[in-house]
Amino acid sequence: MSTHTDRLHDRKFVRTFFTTPTAVEGEDDSAKMLRSAAQLRGMEAPDVWVPDNEDATAPSMRDEGIENIIDVISEHGADYPSEIHPRMVWHRDSPATRYQGFQHIMELADPENGAIEHIDGVVIPEVGDIDDWKKADEFITIVENEHGLEEGSLAMSVIVESGEAELALGDLREEMGKPANNLERLFLLVDGEVDYTKNMRAITPTGELPPWPELRHNTSRGASAAGLIAVDGPYDDIRDVEGYHERMTDNQAKGMLGIWSLTPGQVVEANKSPLPPKTGSWLLEANGREVELDEEDGQFVYEGDGIELDETGDDQYRLRIGSNERDLDGDELSEALLDLASYIPSLNDIVDSMEEFEAAKEAGKGAIAMERAATLVIDGVEVEISNDRMWDEATYQAAQTPINLFQDVYENRPDQHEDLEELYGEDIVERAIVVG
Amino acid sequence: MSTHTDRLHDRKFVRTFFTTPTAVEGEDDSAKMLRSAAQLRGMEAPDVWVPDNEDATAPSMRDEGIENIIDVISEHGADYPSEIHPRMVWHRDSPATRYQGFQHIMELADPENGAIEHIDGVVIPEVGDIDDWKKADEFITIVENEHGLEEGSLAMSVIVESGEAELALGDLREEMGKPANNLERLFLLVDGEVDYTKNMRAITPTGELPPWPELRHNTSRGASAAGLIAVDGPYDDIRDVEGYHERMTDNQAKGMLGIWSLTPGQVVEANKSPLPPKTGSWLLEANGREVELDEEDGQFVYEGDGIELDETGDDQYRLRIGSNERDLDGDELSEALLDLASYIPSLNDIVDSMEEFEAAKEAGKGAIAMERAATLVIDGVEVEISNDRMWDEATYQAAQTPINLFQDVYENRPDQHEDLEELYGEDIVERAIVVG
Amino acid sequence: MSTHTDRLHDRKFVRTFFTTPTAVEGEDDSAKMLRSAAQLRGMEAPDVWVPDNEDATAPSMRDEGIENIIDVISEHGADYPSEIHPRMVWHRDSPATRYQGFQHIMELADPENGAIEHIDGVVIPEVGDIDDWKKADEFITIVENEHGLEEGSLAMSVIVESGEAELALGDLREEMGKPANNLERLFLLVDGEVDYTKNMRAITPTGELPPWPELRHNTSRGASAAGLIAVDGPYDDIRDVEGYHERMTDNQAKGMLGIWSLTPGQVVEANKSPLPPKTGSWLLEANGREVELDEEDGQFVYEGDGIELDETGDDQYRLRIGSNERDLDGDELSEALLDLASYIPSLNDIVDSMEEFEAAKEAGKGAIAMERAATLVIDGVEVEISNDRMWDEATYQAAQTPINLFQDVYENRPDQHEDLEELYGEDIVERAIVVG
Repeated sequence: MSTHTDRLHDRKFVRTFFTTPTAVEGEDDSAKMLRSAAQLRGMEAPDVWVPDNEDATAPSMRDEGIENIIDVISEHGADYPSEIHPRMVWHRDSPATRYQGFQHIMELADPENGAIEHIDGVVIPEVGDIDDWKKADEFITIVENEHGLEEGSLAMSVIVESGEAELALGDLREEMGKPANNLERLFLLVDGEVDYTKNMRAITPTGELPPWPELRHNTSRGASAAGLIAVDGPYDDIRDVEGYHERMTDNQAKGMLGIWSLTPGQVVEANKSPLPPKTGSWLLEANGREVELDEEDGQFVYEGDGIELDETGDDQYRLRIGSNERDLDGDELSEALLDLASYIPSLNDIVDSMEEFEAAKEAGKGAIAMERAATLVIDGVEVEISNDRMWDEATYQAAQTPINLFQDVYENRPDQHEDLEELYGEDIVERAIVVG
Repeated sequence: MSTHTDRLHDRKFVRTFFTTPTAVEGEDDSAKMLRSAAQLRGMEAPDVWVPDNEDATAPSMRDEGIENIIDVISEHGADYPSEIHPRMVWHRDSPATRYQGFQHIMELADPENGAIEHIDGVVIPEVGDIDDWKKADEFITIVENEHGLEEGSLAMSVIVESGEAELALGDLREEMGKPANNLERLFLLVDGEVDYTKNMRAITPTGELPPWPELRHNTSRGASAAGLIAVDGPYDDIRDVEGYHERMTDNQAKGMLGIWSLTPGQVVEANKSPLPPKTGSWLLEANGREVELDEEDGQFVYEGDGIELDETGDDQYRLRIGSNERDLDGDELSEALLDLASYIPSLNDIVDSMEEFEAAKEAGKGAIAMERAATLVIDGVEVEISNDRMWDEATYQAAQTPINLFQDVYENRPDQHEDLEELYGEDIVERAIVVG
Repeated sequence: MSTHTDRLHDRKFVRTFFTTPTAVEGEDDSAKMLRSAAQLRGMEAPDVWVPDNEDATAPSMRDEGIENIIDVISEHGADYPSEIHPRMVWHRDSPATRYQGFQHIMELADPENGAIEHIDGVVIPEVGDIDDWKKADEFITIVENEHGLEEGSLAMSVIVESGEAELALGDLREEMGKPANNLERLFLLVDGEVDYTKNMRAITPTGELPPWPELRHNTSRGASAAGLIAVDGPYDDIRDVEGYHERMTDNQAKGMLGIWSLTPGQVVEANKSPLPPKTGSWLLEANGREVELDEEDGQFVYEGDGIELDETGDDQYRLRIGSNERDLDGDELSEALLDLASYIPSLNDIVDSMEEFEAAKEAGKGAIAMERAATLVIDGVEVEISNDRMWDEATYQAAQTPINLFQDVYENRPDQHEDLEELYGEDIVERAIVVG
């Protein structure tokens, strides 16, 4: 939606990178999927929509794919609620493919075709060393110049799917400042684990993709050091919603807040995943596993069988965790359970804590204790636990990441306002967009 | 076996790196182990045999070690079934050691000694920064020139066993192209975790080696980016075959398909490890653990106690996983078990799938569904599961790594043809060597 | 204690990095905590004490903080038992903060203030690229020159808390040799995970810090490659002693032997953690968990319920591990248990083994078998196990790290001699300080 002259890096956060084939073989309306994706709104619409003229589209259909992108975006782009970054063909080892990619960008960017004003940038797959990234950057600069676009106004995102591209992630910060390139146009660093696995010649017994934690770390670090945004690759077991969520939680702990989505269903999950939950929850750890407690009438009930608790007398309890049994009084029991418990704060909790800390700061205090109390119920026995956590400036700032993301979403995605209000309630949304 | 003039990088894959002392103190025939290793054949012979004139041989015996290498290889080298790369002495911090290494290579490469025509390269341990690698490369260039060998014809492999060498892995791709060196002779990047642990000053309570996942990733990535081959270090609990296999599986998921072997027994295990299994198998995951199912009369029987299943009525089942119990009908049950199941394809399965995909591609299809069905038996209850997986070009190419390895083995190791045919049957071997 | 002219890198190992606020708002004696920390001795005193004029001290109090450092150190510094490295203000993105840091160092280093002779260096937080490190280095060089201190005599430690600083860890070795800087003054590389998490924009559900294994690896590797010392960041759940120990064990396996301490209680734990234990212990692994056996009358008793053992007949046993049951004779049983057992050697054990190997080496042997035997008791059944491990030069050198650390502590921390002798006994301390 945003025109490329008023961006650069409009989005500070990108949750979703949704690819759609640009042309489907043997279909009368080969642009049907593209047209359908162009009309998604709200939680089903991604932060970055990627008409995919590379792997998702058959090699023989790619010229037609470019025509379809132009047709669909010139028609629907003005109303599209977020950014559009089509994926071009490119390969570090093939000058023919690179030249084809160049020609496609040139065509896409021709103002007479009516699409470029709605296109925010392009995605370049299969990049190699940083010098290969510069080749793509140079082609885009030439296209901008030929078509009278401002130099650097078209964003460039890359798919990191080779060892040499992973190594290039360490050079970005230094290279982006050089006068002979326009690499400041860089936007998303997207991992592509399928081809990466092939290029690393990795093998797993079942053929599943390896987890590649170091690649994801290096991508996230490269993005952090160069002011870019890290996005994980596709999760191709589309039915496995739980697995998709686990992957996103793992990514978020690495600072990689975005993920590739293959379906509108995955887009919905991925748009919501980095947002704080509506309601807070307590976890209890037993035998190395964390179990979420069920809330019943304001109490939190443990239903697992890893922890057993008996009241053995007046203020006397027996606590069994796995094969370890201890006799404790009430205070000792509270403390033992506090050690096992952790709390996942809701959006409301985070806003409350931030507001409380801001008020304290205004009153001249640098650090305050935040209390979190609850009644846990294990085998029918009620136990009160209460936890003080010190908040200082650093805690406050670290807590801000989900709020910053929330505010970025709110600012850039008016089409999701209704969903957010439905999800959280209007009150909390209004407080969340101004806090911090 | 291959002479160094007809190689460079004969092998695209190396499974095994087998070191043998070059001289044993206090033995009449100090070359006995060398002579015995030179006569190994088939699965007991490694892809790369390393007469080890460094750590495996006492410092006082190393000049004798070079003589022994020359004697044994000039006698047995012509018949040796794979590559020979003796390990020299070298140390980034010791010019004396480096000079000794240079002298040893010079002697080894003297055509009058009759060994060099059977030697494919040398292994340089204890390298430091990339500039240290260049010193070794330069010595080898001088040796080649002095002895009338083609420049760059002797391969150079290194042992990565210091932080600075690990950092150098990121420079290889860039440095290998420079006109002032012959680093294109690089072949294997081998991790040496014992000395690496010492140099990193790491401590574990039991004295076991740390797992060093990041080192192995960086070695594999460096190999991928520079067109080289990554090999893991020695696994010194020789009796622990299961542990050796787990390590290799972990390495393979990192793209590190080769491993150091200390005994012919380890060579056999390591030669077989990256090859696909003879028969496929189903795994079922319960409580975070995967259990392999036993095949009985074409059905797959679960013998663990993490999952329990009862038939509670007509098309009604109760499934318990850990402490979680659900009542399901037959379709729901199939789906629940499908989520927990995964399949390890056999060589036959992989070849079938590749052939099927190739046929589909020839018929103009870009993606096809591959079905995999089985009958699982849990607590006597039979459940049919069936799984469709989409294969496209990317899936096809990723599946090729084990096949490429298989074909590389078949091409380069005629002495293992018989073992492969015995292991898989002649039919499947014949199909596997032509597919792809 | 050491004056900066007789150091550089006095300490080869640093276990503890203890930060203390330099000024507390609203307190009459705002230097009280500083004064109290200056008088710690023995195990409560850290290897490196860090009067913290950055995050631990309110922004408005930092000029006063410098005065307090000068006051307290000029009074107590001469008697302080280890090194003193105050933390200054600094930020890669703020010239104002950098200039303030420069002014503070200038004041601190003024010989007329009487503190600098007891100060070993300064800690620079929030560094960015290597060029930012050089700015701090240059300021310290100017300060040294202005105040007549030897160039390079003030150590500089940095807090790594941004992606760009993590990347700079790979440049140190190369940059430290350049004539235009004095980066040889570098001393500690300290991870700062709170701000790193913020800068990487990472999110965890509970707000806990992510584990950041790759950052810690890269810091440790950077330290190893450049001859520096790696230190992990603060563990802020002060009550969780077990968690602190687990973190340190994990760090030590990465070669990161030092950790930040927030309280004298944490200092005690962290000072002891990398030292070998007083008594050895046996571990038995069952279902993926290691359980420490209880020593009773020289036997080692398994109290867990993951392993069950019955004597079923004459030299006949039934061993059950999880759901796996096997019938074994005595020898098979010993071997099965040996596979599950591991031993954590005591300081005494390590010294014994090293002395034994040294004697063997002197007698001309390159490798010897070290035996370790024990009687295990499971469900009342006694089983003898015995394990031979080969020791060669590499094993010997790897075993030396804890001994080197022990000796470094003994040499540099006379105030801990009494604690060490109490902990281990005088005899073993005397042998440990001379072995190797």
